[in-house]
Amino acid sequence: MAKDIASRVNDYSQWYNDLVIKGGLADYSSVRGCMVIKPYGYAIWEHMRDALDKMFKDTGHVNAYFPLLIPKSFLSKEASHVDGFAKECAVVTHYRLKNSADGKSVIVDPDAKLEEELIIRPTSETIIWNSYKNWIQSYRDLPILINQWANVVRWEMRTRLFLRTAEFLWQEGHTAHATASEAIAETEKMLDVYATFAEEFMALPVIRGKKSANERFAGALDTYCIEAMMQDGQALQAGTSHFLGQNFAKAFDVQFLNKEGKQEYVWASSWGVSTRLIGALIMAHSDDDGLVLPPKLAPLQVVIVPIAKGEEEMKKLFEKCEPLMQELKAKGISVKFDDDDTKRPGFKFAEHELKGVPVRLAMGMRDYEAGTVEVARRDTKEKSSQPFNGVAGYIENLLKEIQQNIFNKAKAFRDSHIRQVNSWEDFLKQIEAPGFISAHWDGTPETEEKIKELTKATIRCIPLDNKQENGTCVFSGKPSKERVIFARAY
Amino acid sequence: MAKDIASRVNDYSQWYNDLVIKGGLADYSSVRGCMVIKPYGYAIWEHMRDALDKMFKDTGHVNAYFPLLIPKSFLSKEASHVDGFAKECAVVTHYRLKNSADGKSVIVDPDAKLEEELIIRPTSETIIWNSYKNWIQSYRDLPILINQWANVVRWEMRTRLFLRTAEFLWQEGHTAHATASEAIAETEKMLDVYATFAEEFMALPVIRGKKSANERFAGALDTYCIEAMMQDGQALQAGTSHFLGQNFAKAFDVQFLNKEGKQEYVWASSWGVSTRLIGALIMAHSDDDGLVLPPKLAPLQVVIVPIAKGEEEMKKLFEKCEPLMQELKAKGISVKFDDDDTKRPGFKFAEHELKGVPVRLAMGMRDYEAGTVEVARRDTKEKSSQPFNGVAGYIENLLKEIQQNIFNKAKAFRDSHIRQVNSWEDFLKQIEAPGFISAHWDGTPETEEKIKELTKATIRCIPLDNKQENGTCVFSGKPSKERVIFARAY
Repeated sequence: MAKDIASRVNDYSQWYNDLVIKGGLADYSSVRGCMVIKPYGYAIWEHMRDALDKMFKDTGHVNAYFPLLIPKSFLSKEASHVDGFAKECAVVTHYRLKNSADGKSVIVDPDAKLEEELIIRPTSETIIWNSYKNWIQSYRDLPILINQWANVVRWEMRTRLFLRTAEFLWQEGHTAHATASEAIAETEKMLDVYATFAEEFMALPVIRGKKSANERFAGALDTYCIEAMMQDGQALQAGTSHFLGQNFAKAFDVQFLNKEGKQEYVWASSWGVSTRLIGALIMAHSDDDGLVLPPKLAPLQVVIVPIAKGEEEMKKLFEKCEPLMQELKAKGISVKFDDDDTKRPGFKFAEHELKGVPVRLAMGMRDYEAGTVEVARRDTKEKSSQPFNGVAGYIENLLKEIQQNIFNKAKAFRDSHIRQVNSWEDFLKQIEAPGFISAHWDGTPETEEKIKELTKATIRCIPLDNKQENGTCVFSGKPSKERVIFARAY
Repeated sequence: MAKDIASRVNDYSQWYNDLVIKGGLADYSSVRGCMVIKPYGYAIWEHMRDALDKMFKDTGHVNAYFPLLIPKSFLSKEASHVDGFAKECAVVTHYRLKNSADGKSVIVDPDAKLEEELIIRPTSETIIWNSYKNWIQSYRDLPILINQWANVVRWEMRTRLFLRTAEFLWQEGHTAHATASEAIAETEKMLDVYATFAEEFMALPVIRGKKSANERFAGALDTYCIEAMMQDGQALQAGTSHFLGQNFAKAFDVQFLNKEGKQEYVWASSWGVSTRLIGALIMAHSDDDGLVLPPKLAPLQVVIVPIAKGEEEMKKLFEKCEPLMQELKAKGISVKFDDDDTKRPGFKFAEHELKGVPVRLAMGMRDYEAGTVEVARRDTKEKSSQPFNGVAGYIENLLKEIQQNIFNKAKAFRDSHIRQVNSWEDFLKQIEAPGFISAHWDGTPETEEKIKELTKATIRCIPLDNKQENGTCVFSGKPSKERVIFARAY
């Protein structure tokens, strides 16, 4: 097949779009900024969702579902939340259509205007805390550890498939606690869950850190994040976990009787990851031939391409491979025998490369006779001839090796693209090269703003395991105790 | 615990609401007609979703995700669809809010008016077929067998928790085929999947049938349905599967090159079930003490209530039960040891009854010494003392027996509440008693309308396995070839 994929070097942005569209992950829709997640892309999301959902449940969380629509007035109840979220929202003003006078189209019925407009949730803190108010009376009702899988809408002006869309799918955890320390522990625990998921499932090394005040979630006292590096050296925020203090409890008057018999406001956390992770997955690992997917998230892990002349040979090859497929499936490995006779083997090879299937087997009659099979791995493109007997075990190990190799490669790339910078002059030079900058910062929002204005670089995070050292701010020269990570970001 | 549940005989409607609210399944929200699905209710939905999703995948379907928002003009492209769906919709007219002049609230920004209003999907045929147009060129692109798990909004005037809410969760399958017969086969196959799910998982006997023209889905040539009987004798439509002919293909100009090299419009089906099924589950099986849940869908299948004085005894009982819990979990049975020391055993018994936990074990020190355990089943409330050794196997069988018994009970109730009626006088009398009426109908929409007007009964379905017999319409006296099912319905 002719892939027609742009190369990363020539046009990284076009390369990304080509992979999304030609890889069959998503499609544009007729609604501005909204995408269609196609079956192959959705299958990746299902794998992500299932893995995360298990991790959430293993850490004591349960799922629930809250309304899509939020009364407009709720958004202005938490002062900083309104500035961050109330602006670019889809607003429902009417609840009925009617036929136009000429009967040819439908128009909004002016008599069906809502008394109070409703907002499609951009995030659900407000509507959820409005419910928690009725659910929490005493410390015995705490903690509440709820997660929601849902769609949200933020009317972004510039959108990109998966990375920034007006509607996206995500999960949002919203927890309620009796003490600040419990809520903070929860916030940190969920950051750990996200980091573990990113590294073990997505094969994506991440830096765990805290956001600066400027970059905090609207309504949070502290925002923790995991930051990943894409192959163009830009940063991508892959998940956030917020310590919300008592802000939402105060906004919605959620108090509880504590063990000492006193009324107190409830402490909160919220945390989320979204379909944006699919964008990160693509940009972190793929190459100019198409997607490279970590086996743990690949919709299809193994494909068998028979190389047969005529039905007779095809049948022989299928019968040979059938027990292998059963064996692989019994090991929990997904496998497909690609016997589509309308496509040539070379076309199939290219197609499965584009789709990022981690392991491809090819078998012709010569292999059949010799008792061998060709095994090709997608990540390194290495091919080898393997004895057919026992190949299931070989594949099982290979999938693990591929998972690890993809991670190692991404980590080596990232680690070699973080540079310590100690002067403003060097900063201006280094920020033009792909990668992250580790530099001292004086801790003020003003300096951060100024650096962003001059370089488009933002503080991605203050790493959690940060070394404490005396230094001077790369921009202002004022004293600093630790380095932070600067980068341009998606 | 004081349950305060209304009895079915005294106030069926209040009984239902009490179970939903006090059973912790759902809660009202601040948005008119929208509910909060609480963790216990959502856990039931997760079990339903997982079982259905597996059945969909086993029959060759894949999941995808299409936009929440639909351009208003799309709804008027399919003539009958617009009448059925375009009316009671949530309409998005603006995409931005701004601070009010006094800074105290947010208002809709009049400058951010959409050129074309967007509708929150009431169902997705239009937006999906608009995508299919780009995906289908040749018969090689067919069939498309896609399902979507999503939320939808229909601005219902009278709402009831789970049964009829402005927003609800559902799945909607949308398939595209090269021939009418393939599309019809798909429509029928998915009705079978729904019926199997209802009977095997929900323990809910259903009648498979077709809707009359009046009750068809807007845009369908044929609507198949499964109809269930609630304990008050009313009908509840538990799932529908539609043969859409070429209606949506024509509305969105989706043509393909068939095997003969000619352009042809694509054939379609769509099918869906929703969180409404949770309402059906409650109303079909539960009793005046609370929920009765079929084991296959119960969030918790077995609860162990220790009857202990002090920590020492509690510890002994826990250690005794721990291996049993491991054994049950290994069998895929969910189990909880309820050692909450703030509640007395009697309170816990009532609580687990309310929640519909299928099997309750109770163990005190006397049981501990004797090597026995008390086993109580929720469906019949029978209790028995069982030897502790080997009780896991006993429980495994008991859960199967309960599942079957719940089904049998519902089926016996339904079968004894379907009455053949042969005169209008008898119809008027029988329709006031709980149950379905099987009667001849002349096949005209006028008669159906008239009967509805006079009795509030609708034709629930024309059963698929209907006996053909000569008769006369119960209302008009005109000739008829078969009986149909009449009932008042949710």
